[in-house]
Amino acid sequence: MAAVPVPTLLSHRQYARVASFADPLVLESGRTLKAVTLCYEVFGRLNPEGDNAILVCHALTGDSHVAGRYRPDDPKPGWWDDAVGPGKALDTERYCVICSNVIGGCQGSTGPGSANPDTGRPYGLDFPIVTPRDMVRAQARLLDQLGVRRLVAVVGGSLGAMQALEWAATYPDRMRGVIPIGGAGRFHPQGIAFNEVQRQAILNDPDFRGGQYYGTPGPVRGLATARMLGMITYRSDESMWTQFGREVRGEGSPLDRGFGVAFQVESYLHYQGQKLVERFDANSYLYLTRAMDLMDLGRGRGSYEAAHALIRAKVLAVGIRSDLLFPPYLQQETVNLVRAAGGWAEYVEMDSPWGHDAFLVDFHLIEEPIRRFLESLEYDD
Amino acid sequence: MAAVPVPTLLSHRQYARVASFADPLVLESGRTLKAVTLCYEVFGRLNPEGDNAILVCHALTGDSHVAGRYRPDDPKPGWWDDAVGPGKALDTERYCVICSNVIGGCQGSTGPGSANPDTGRPYGLDFPIVTPRDMVRAQARLLDQLGVRRLVAVVGGSLGAMQALEWAATYPDRMRGVIPIGGAGRFHPQGIAFNEVQRQAILNDPDFRGGQYYGTPGPVRGLATARMLGMITYRSDESMWTQFGREVRGEGSPLDRGFGVAFQVESYLHYQGQKLVERFDANSYLYLTRAMDLMDLGRGRGSYEAAHALIRAKVLAVGIRSDLLFPPYLQQETVNLVRAAGGWAEYVEMDSPWGHDAFLVDFHLIEEPIRRFLESLEYDD
Repeated sequence: MAAVPVPTLLSHRQYARVASFADPLVLESGRTLKAVTLCYEVFGRLNPEGDNAILVCHALTGDSHVAGRYRPDDPKPGWWDDAVGPGKALDTERYCVICSNVIGGCQGSTGPGSANPDTGRPYGLDFPIVTPRDMVRAQARLLDQLGVRRLVAVVGGSLGAMQALEWAATYPDRMRGVIPIGGAGRFHPQGIAFNEVQRQAILNDPDFRGGQYYGTPGPVRGLATARMLGMITYRSDESMWTQFGREVRGEGSPLDRGFGVAFQVESYLHYQGQKLVERFDANSYLYLTRAMDLMDLGRGRGSYEAAHALIRAKVLAVGIRSDLLFPPYLQQETVNLVRAAGGWAEYVEMDSPWGHDAFLVDFHLIEEPIRRFLESLEYDD
Repeated sequence: MAAVPVPTLLSHRQYARVASFADPLVLESGRTLKAVTLCYEVFGRLNPEGDNAILVCHALTGDSHVAGRYRPDDPKPGWWDDAVGPGKALDTERYCVICSNVIGGCQGSTGPGSANPDTGRPYGLDFPIVTPRDMVRAQARLLDQLGVRRLVAVVGGSLGAMQALEWAATYPDRMRGVIPIGGAGRFHPQGIAFNEVQRQAILNDPDFRGGQYYGTPGPVRGLATARMLGMITYRSDESMWTQFGREVRGEGSPLDRGFGVAFQVESYLHYQGQKLVERFDANSYLYLTRAMDLMDLGRGRGSYEAAHALIRAKVLAVGIRSDLLFPPYLQQETVNLVRAAGGWAEYVEMDSPWGHDAFLVDFHLIEEPIRRFLESLEYDD
């Protein structure tokens, strides 16, 4: 889509120690993490004032590799390459874009697969429950180390949007704007329900072994089943009609398949399940879905409504028309509550049939609103 | 809700042999069932002309016990007691209401838990794949035996609605009306996807043992997980906010639960999962969800559109505003296609927040439309 070819954006993983025995991270639950490493990537340059950075927060199975390639011949760029890069909406020639893998994750940051400093073995289920607020607190320590004085904005979709809102409420003076996309200030009960079924698929897998499966293949069937359900909630009935309809997989009648794959949509789900198993840790899947369930901007802040009065950043909340996992009313609620508390908030809806994943696959629909929003922030103060 | 007390409606299970070695049931797949028993119940009396019967078709986990009690002190009546009984919409003083457990089921009709006449052992996964059309063909044999010459109507919700539509296309002259509620002439890909995830939960359970688990507790965790997901699709986000919101189960913080139940909505799903395990066979769950997937009124009839030209009965298609499993567009499609083929069809939408289950829990919303529709059928011919 770029009119002028741009050089390949290259990035590499970096690691920062953000908590230690001497300076542990105290979590919302009251438990502490005595050793926290965050894996992160930086795109573009931080200015000497330390105020041109945008923090991108990733979704459930995302990671720090938001854009570009590690090597010029990598087959695929990072997960949000449509959004981040030279001349793109999150313009790396103008902004310093930073993305870190969340705590509880499995892509370089401390999570349930990391060594427990008390035992030297992987935490497994001894890892403490973490929340989006805990993720944000760890990220704040990283930004301190990097010399980021004040962010232009915090941007994220899904679990990333939850983090963006927690940023706005936890550190009101550290950013000018937040852009939660397909997110919520608190998760809805149907979303918790979908997450719980996914966790059951993992927990019931005999290869889960109470979470101490490291060194074995682990609960691959359970994790694949969880991902299959997750994928349904990331898409929409509408997009499934477009992609698959009732098309039968392969030759022959669907009546002859027993309980093997009969329809293309089943085949697709199995493929997605298998793909995730190769790159993701089942324990992290448990911890990060639970973090979504626990998202509640109001916890410890008087009330859900009152928490929105803490927000000083401008809020551009993006909903997706066909989103099953984070229906648009959730983003509209955020906007209404920020406004009711005297803040600045605007709602934009993506008219996309692609469901929750529209923030990834139909980014072009919000490129201009995000560009304009980011520009508007420069004239504040 | 009844203004005048009515005597307790009593019913009992009856059994009919509808296929035998000499007269097997040939299925859509081409496979045959050499012994088919249907379990059924009758409410009200068939008139001498054999033309006052209404056939009710049940949903996935339903059975023949549509209304009334087996004994006066039964704690709960049948599953659609709001609809069926003296003076009710399906008035048993006027109509003879018949309901049979589907083939493939586990409530008295021949299914995967029945003895395979070739081996004497339960079929398990040797049971053939069945479709709604197969279910209907078996029911037609039952009605022949009972002396039902022509039905007033075929009525059903969910999988029952699929059967009602198959009745209308397979035996166009055997009923005056059909009332499919929350159904579809063909299942949608997202529905197939939800079913496939549920089946995976069962198939992956080590206690499933390839379907030959009879005499053991069977895949109770897998079946419970499947039911948990099913329940999400039978309800709605809206009703879950009303019933549960983000309410925490029991005392204490949701941050201290690990991956045990933290929220009421999770507790509810687990309860529903456990309840189903006590009364339902996992193999039947596989077969009947697959039957839903395979529902396609157009199979073997030229095209989906063409199949609707076969229908001569009047069609009252009922959609439910908040239905996730059978969204209203599916029932609207049925109405449009019947009309396009020159038939009579009307669409009614239940303005209920209860999702797919509204046909059970909010029946009063369609009591009058159904009453009027049934009355209108008497003036036909």
